[in-house]
Amino acid sequence: MIESKIKSTVRDVYDFPKPGIVFKDITPILKDAALCLEIAQALAAQLKGIEIDVVAGIESRGFLFGPALAQLLNVPFVPIRKAGKLPYKTVQQTYNLEYGSATIELHEDALVAGQKVLIHDDLLATGGTVVAASELVMQLGAEVAGYSFIIGLDFLNGRVRLEPYCNKIFSLASY
Amino acid sequence: MIESKIKSTVRDVYDFPKPGIVFKDITPILKDAALCLEIAQALAAQLKGIEIDVVAGIESRGFLFGPALAQLLNVPFVPIRKAGKLPYKTVQQTYNLEYGSATIELHEDALVAGQKVLIHDDLLATGGTVVAASELVMQLGAEVAGYSFIIGLDFLNGRVRLEPYCNKIFSLASY
Repeated sequence: MIESKIKSTVRDVYDFPKPGIVFKDITPILKDAALCLEIAQALAAQLKGIEIDVVAGIESRGFLFGPALAQLLNVPFVPIRKAGKLPYKTVQQTYNLEYGSATIELHEDALVAGQKVLIHDDLLATGGTVVAASELVMQLGAEVAGYSFIIGLDFLNGRVRLEPYCNKIFSLASY
Repeated sequence: MIESKIKSTVRDVYDFPKPGIVFKDITPILKDAALCLEIAQALAAQLKGIEIDVVAGIESRGFLFGPALAQLLNVPFVPIRKAGKLPYKTVQQTYNLEYGSATIELHEDALVAGQKVLIHDDLLATGGTVVAASELVMQLGAEVAGYSFIIGLDFLNGRVRLEPYCNKIFSLASY
């Protein structure tokens, strides 16, 4: 089963990025080409029956499986990047971090109004970045059709923050 | 032909990231799922006959096609990241930029001594980051087996800086 394979392959790194946090390190997954393919296929399988026009992946770890997922769904992949990285005209969204704030961007021609967008990242934690990504999608008149993560840290309640945008929230392995 | 398809799809963005630079924006490629598949397959085809144990991709744009290339070659994918992003123990390499310097990292268990590593990024410019990536590979006792880029800006002479590490340098579209 994919969930147990993911859980037995992910590495827990204690006190990263700061004391008290247990970081889920997916680099051991990336070393296993067969598991990577299985994960991409399982991400796509969870979305069966949902209309998706575009996959938007969040920099950087959302770039690792997002393009493979878009490929399997046969739709465009659109990168959501940290401020200052996308070269063309962008829309921006700033959100709060525990200390300070961060800004992410999307090319203004990345989406067309009315498109149904699947937002992908490797992991759902508190949901702050994913909420900001959802706002970017809406700034361009598109709509969030679903969320797809490899890992969901459900104890951090990120799902509750995403539900107002779209309640189709999928992850392959939950903690 | 793949080169002409890439060149007709990439977008030139003038004066990014600073005045006088013409930036090759690959986001229009990412919107074309069929072209993305063709590119990944063409990257793999160029490497026929070269022994490769691992694909190492450079953050962030090297994450967009690196995992697909690793998948087609049926080998592990290893991320080379900006300092502070990889959670486990790392080796580091600092290199000079036009103003200041930058540091990239690799997990110290990402490679095993003697492994043959293909280094991938979306674009070869002056080669500074790719040289630093090559040094990271060598720090772990592995060797550079080749370089694979979607786009090579040959007029910037990055190839000359890579040849001392490995002269198998491939790109699908050259300028």
